[in-house]
Amino acid sequence: MYTEPTTFSAEQYFATQLPPPTLQHDVECVREFIARHQKEGRAVVLVTSGGTTVPLELNVVRFLDNFSAGTRGATSAEYFLKAGYAVIFMHRQFSLQPFSRHYSHSTNPFLDFLDIDSPESPGATPRISVTPNKREDLLQVLTMYKDVHARGTLHTLTFVTVDDYLWLLRAVSKEMSVLKRKAMFYLAAAVSDFFLPRQKMASYLSEHKIQSGKGSLHIEMDQVPKILKPLVDEWTPGGFIVSFKLETDENLLLPKARQALERYGHQVVIGNELHRRKFEVVFVSKKPSPALPPGIKQTKEAISHATDPSNSFSEYWLRIDIPEHPAPGVLVKEIEEDIVAELVKRHTEWVENTS
Amino acid sequence: MYTEPTTFSAEQYFATQLPPPTLQHDVECVREFIARHQKEGRAVVLVTSGGTTVPLELNVVRFLDNFSAGTRGATSAEYFLKAGYAVIFMHRQFSLQPFSRHYSHSTNPFLDFLDIDSPESPGATPRISVTPNKREDLLQVLTMYKDVHARGTLHTLTFVTVDDYLWLLRAVSKEMSVLKRKAMFYLAAAVSDFFLPRQKMASYLSEHKIQSGKGSLHIEMDQVPKILKPLVDEWTPGGFIVSFKLETDENLLLPKARQALERYGHQVVIGNELHRRKFEVVFVSKKPSPALPPGIKQTKEAISHATDPSNSFSEYWLRIDIPEHPAPGVLVKEIEEDIVAELVKRHTEWVENTS
Repeated sequence: MYTEPTTFSAEQYFATQLPPPTLQHDVECVREFIARHQKEGRAVVLVTSGGTTVPLELNVVRFLDNFSAGTRGATSAEYFLKAGYAVIFMHRQFSLQPFSRHYSHSTNPFLDFLDIDSPESPGATPRISVTPNKREDLLQVLTMYKDVHARGTLHTLTFVTVDDYLWLLRAVSKEMSVLKRKAMFYLAAAVSDFFLPRQKMASYLSEHKIQSGKGSLHIEMDQVPKILKPLVDEWTPGGFIVSFKLETDENLLLPKARQALERYGHQVVIGNELHRRKFEVVFVSKKPSPALPPGIKQTKEAISHATDPSNSFSEYWLRIDIPEHPAPGVLVKEIEEDIVAELVKRHTEWVENTS
Repeated sequence: MYTEPTTFSAEQYFATQLPPPTLQHDVECVREFIARHQKEGRAVVLVTSGGTTVPLELNVVRFLDNFSAGTRGATSAEYFLKAGYAVIFMHRQFSLQPFSRHYSHSTNPFLDFLDIDSPESPGATPRISVTPNKREDLLQVLTMYKDVHARGTLHTLTFVTVDDYLWLLRAVSKEMSVLKRKAMFYLAAAVSDFFLPRQKMASYLSEHKIQSGKGSLHIEMDQVPKILKPLVDEWTPGGFIVSFKLETDENLLLPKARQALERYGHQVVIGNELHRRKFEVVFVSKKPSPALPPGIKQTKEAISHATDPSNSFSEYWLRIDIPEHPAPGVLVKEIEEDIVAELVKRHTEWVENTS
């Protein structure tokens, strides 16, 4: 049976799809985390990171995936922590995490820089130590890591599927609404545009069960609802919301970023071109509408001025040099350091503008 | 344009699809590794591990994936190394690896069991040490790891897509053919049954470019060629070949395993049911055909006896207990230890039977 593709609104989506079983527990932990940091006067940022999957079978073996190692999110989370934010790090299982990211996906696993020292006395258990030339970097990372854990400023949530992601995002953003303007959203996860509604999956499985004996595989998916709109309007009014646009065609960067701002009404789109994303990004935001001088009619010129994109959007390009020969033992400059610094500045103004 | 799904033979596949750019380099390293261990009289096992992807776009963002963390492969590789084999570990990027697997995908990253000791004198760099209750396990893993690296008995290869996998498997198995019966193949990777031929991807991209503005996503893929047949018959005659069947319906385990042995003519299929795979597997293999007593005609009974599966296939069930309360500081018993022990026994007989 062929089922017509459907476009789900966010409301329809949540009314027809099932929440992940851990949602209630996750929300309670988030609520506690937010309450504690609100009491201590700390700003809270939700960082989403990594790709989402779309399972194609009930016993999930095959799924559609969006590629993302989670570098942008994990790196940025570290800089937000350094800047004094409490961070809710909502990431794809096994994607990079703050601090451990320096070692986890490396081709040289951490076992490579551990040494076994000769025991001090015969028969004693030998000590394990860190290879001397790795000690300084590891000490720096480990010190930050211990510090963050001692303060309790990092809370980690895990998702795998696009359904997990959507349900979690809605629940967490609703919890964050109590923070009003002190809440920031840094939506760096690479979210699938498509999903397989469970109603379709059931019929898909019974009628078109994926079998390797067949000559071809046919998949028909529906569009994921655009959740930025309800996020801005309903779930977390007042929050400072940053979304990302990743494009392979750099000519599409600005038009797509502007379109997203027009459509969803949030604060910043960070545009990045796939191959330049490690050293160049652009912040796109809406300029405050210029107030027309009193008594002036909406002339043709005034309207044309107001509708020219260069007059209603601001662009801020951020670039870093790529060190050709990074000195050993020195952590390399990362563009996320500057991205976060710029956002912290803008968020601080945003908070001050209404308090 | 709708393109008819095609069933590719292995020959057609390699004649029309492109090899990964690193193939030549990978093959040269493998050749050197094999030559060294052949000279030292060591048996060599190729362990494949982790899932494969099928990219749906040229700038790979979206792909179809087969789920596998790579536990079976990474764990087994460790036991093959302990048993004195040289191991070619061909795995999906970021899937588990021998030794580091004990720490890499854990919810407690290794930073959690490192301590910063107070410096011995003021101003000195503090030392990093391993949390006392983790020391024994880590020392055991680290000692094996250092030992394997000192002997050079582990060679690692990485793949991502099903194309990488197929090209690598063919090239490595051809290299291993010089080892004759001393080569073992332990094909534990979860390989996609479907792929998108590059010829189709081109037209797919230009005409049906995946765009998020559309209401639905339509994917049409072709079947991956069955490569066990040429592996057995052409690429590596004499090799001892073990494949895996993972099923969610345990009633399908034996029939599917027998069917694979009939079809490809290799030595062992290890069947595992998705939810019981950590503590129960079945080895299925063909019994040597019973010689009919001389002078006896092929009676109805003789034929029925010969075609009854219970008479032409042997099954060997392997089960371990799951410890309910594993003692802390003691590495838990893993079924791969017994799987590898059984295979080493069978492989040794296989080698002795012709030398």
